[in-house]
Amino acid sequence: MAKTAEILAIGTELLTPQRTDTNSLAVTEHLNLLGVEVVAKHIIGDDRDRLTQAIRESVARSNIVILIGGLGPTEDDLTREAAAGALGLNLKLSLEQESILISRFRQINRPMAKNNIKQAYLLEGAEAMPNPNGSAPGQFLSTDRGALAMLPGPPREMKPMLVNELVPRLRHVIPPQVIRVRSFRITGIGESDLDTLIAPVYTRYTNPVTTVLSSPGDLFVFLRAQAETEQRADDLLREVGNAIAELLGDKVYSTNPDEPLEAVIGCLLRKHHATVATAESCTGGLIAGRLTERGGSSDFFVAGYVTYSAAQKQQVLGVPASLIQKHTAVSEPVAAAMAEGARRLSGATYALSATGYAGPDGGTEYDPVGAVYLGIATPTETRVIRVRYGADRYRVRTLATQASLDLLRKTLLKL
Amino acid sequence: MAKTAEILAIGTELLTPQRTDTNSLAVTEHLNLLGVEVVAKHIIGDDRDRLTQAIRESVARSNIVILIGGLGPTEDDLTREAAAGALGLNLKLSLEQESILISRFRQINRPMAKNNIKQAYLLEGAEAMPNPNGSAPGQFLSTDRGALAMLPGPPREMKPMLVNELVPRLRHVIPPQVIRVRSFRITGIGESDLDTLIAPVYTRYTNPVTTVLSSPGDLFVFLRAQAETEQRADDLLREVGNAIAELLGDKVYSTNPDEPLEAVIGCLLRKHHATVATAESCTGGLIAGRLTERGGSSDFFVAGYVTYSAAQKQQVLGVPASLIQKHTAVSEPVAAAMAEGARRLSGATYALSATGYAGPDGGTEYDPVGAVYLGIATPTETRVIRVRYGADRYRVRTLATQASLDLLRKTLLKL
Repeated sequence: MAKTAEILAIGTELLTPQRTDTNSLAVTEHLNLLGVEVVAKHIIGDDRDRLTQAIRESVARSNIVILIGGLGPTEDDLTREAAAGALGLNLKLSLEQESILISRFRQINRPMAKNNIKQAYLLEGAEAMPNPNGSAPGQFLSTDRGALAMLPGPPREMKPMLVNELVPRLRHVIPPQVIRVRSFRITGIGESDLDTLIAPVYTRYTNPVTTVLSSPGDLFVFLRAQAETEQRADDLLREVGNAIAELLGDKVYSTNPDEPLEAVIGCLLRKHHATVATAESCTGGLIAGRLTERGGSSDFFVAGYVTYSAAQKQQVLGVPASLIQKHTAVSEPVAAAMAEGARRLSGATYALSATGYAGPDGGTEYDPVGAVYLGIATPTETRVIRVRYGADRYRVRTLATQASLDLLRKTLLKL
Repeated sequence: MAKTAEILAIGTELLTPQRTDTNSLAVTEHLNLLGVEVVAKHIIGDDRDRLTQAIRESVARSNIVILIGGLGPTEDDLTREAAAGALGLNLKLSLEQESILISRFRQINRPMAKNNIKQAYLLEGAEAMPNPNGSAPGQFLSTDRGALAMLPGPPREMKPMLVNELVPRLRHVIPPQVIRVRSFRITGIGESDLDTLIAPVYTRYTNPVTTVLSSPGDLFVFLRAQAETEQRADDLLREVGNAIAELLGDKVYSTNPDEPLEAVIGCLLRKHHATVATAESCTGGLIAGRLTERGGSSDFFVAGYVTYSAAQKQQVLGVPASLIQKHTAVSEPVAAAMAEGARRLSGATYALSATGYAGPDGGTEYDPVGAVYLGIATPTETRVIRVRYGADRYRVRTLATQASLDLLRKTLLKL
């Protein structure tokens, strides 16, 4: 019979009208990949008695119980104590965890608050799961029916621990299944257009299961096939995956689910021993921020110029004043001159530029809020594209940044 | 004593990796406005036994139990049956609801499927709540301890029923309460240090309830007081809030929950008719990105220079090559020269600079990965602070950006 799991998301803030648990989505995804069905999720506040009762009930009902949050050092972080109470186990100070905590605080050069020592206590019989991104270790306990695990609440701590520590341990307590996955990361197309394009393929299959996720300017298609043999699962994936890949063409920028657009660009630039600079107006530094997001970006990123005023465009990038007067700062010739100026000033192989109306104010009849000119200067030519988005400032800036990066990617692909 | 509520969101689709319950946020908001605290939320699939058990447990624990979803006409819509089982009540056909259903289908000119008649069955003693936007009526049952209600799952049916039907009925079973809130947005202190500082105050009170939320470099303290009169709620807030405000001093950058640090800085710069520019290395444009996040930032943001290479620091910002040779690019004198160069070049009143080791590679014995120099050049002086964070690149960049903005805020506050 299939194994069942329950997830408890812990924290009074998750019971406010403003916040909801989202950590359980990633946990569910990985449990499903292991063939485990999530049968209930519970969101419980920082109340020791309620939490103890909820853990006791979940452990009695389901094979796998995952507790998320409440592992911090403060008074209202009660997950360890509640789990101990629910299972009738003691919490014991781990000298190893204590010394990890002490050296962590020494490393960041801050005194360790007295209450942090709580984080070095483990359930009797539990194994600590290391947390390279925070002070709270996770915990993993094998039980008669399966396992109980505790993960920290901050997503940046929870996700790596889920993938690197919890999933490998769960594999030992769950009978093996053959599951194979294939991913596509996509840009340059909207979510409904994508679905219109590929739904005729994927809706014909229930295995693999196809999931489409979207964030502004960035789409993700995920196929998950399940079969008795690896061969069969791969065959299913190939059939559906190849059909989708053909429909999407160069809109797919990566088939590695963990590789964002800036990483793809970094690889392409390194491969061609090329460098890049940026000249930004409405995106205000976000294109440079993306290009430098990953370690080692000094290999290919030379410089960024955020020239917000017309005077700066002239003075720093050498955009002729007459060009701005004639065409306004938001125009194709100015975007071209910005890119060329940034390329000249930095000595980079390529330069990207962005000038537009991010809103909420500004814009003209022809170029309303949401219109952006994106330029690229290369060793042989300068090109400018015009894009137009809705009127939400955050979306305009995010989408323009992504489109600018994609302009560079497509240029590099043509080499 | 305060009334408590639990919310059950029902439906197997809410247990997938792609979907989560969000209906409970609106329900929570309205319950809180009535002075009812939501103490747990449960997400349960379309499984009759599990659902029956979950309803039984919630009814035994809490005054108000709200069931959302599972009121449709299909086989897997089991909320009515599970509620009847949990409470030991029968479901009875309501002739009135039957005739409403029949006329609804006649009105939309579609035949009524046979299984739709399920939707005309009410719990013994329950009142139907009309649904102008769908075929499933809601149900409301007064209980000894409070009430049990069922709402349909589609948000466009659920929300009007919540506001127009459920809230007025709940008012009859809940004694009136006044709720008042107070917020603090805080930077320049870690979460555990904050808690060590203010826990001695807030743990003495269960009313107001104090919640601490954190994201990198940004903390949020939220107080919520509940009393019979506005006066009394305000008194409670004042007592705890003022004590917390005194402990935190200028670490509080706003008491408006919707005002991020860049908005506070924008106000201060406008007030002093001042402008700002940035010179960034390890933060790669993120400081400029934050300063330009909100509309109208061209009022105060002049320019940003992302000088990633030593050559760019010299060429664009005029940092002397000898200074970099003598002290390295990550040093106090270079941070000072970057800020001064950006101020000179842009003509801005203030300039911020950042140079450091964001990692994962680089660093020296004295300045390892995570060490960052943050400079500010003002009309009268140039100052540099050195900060040091852990070794995670994302955190180093985010925390350094926040600390740089806070350096500007504190400088502006002293005017």
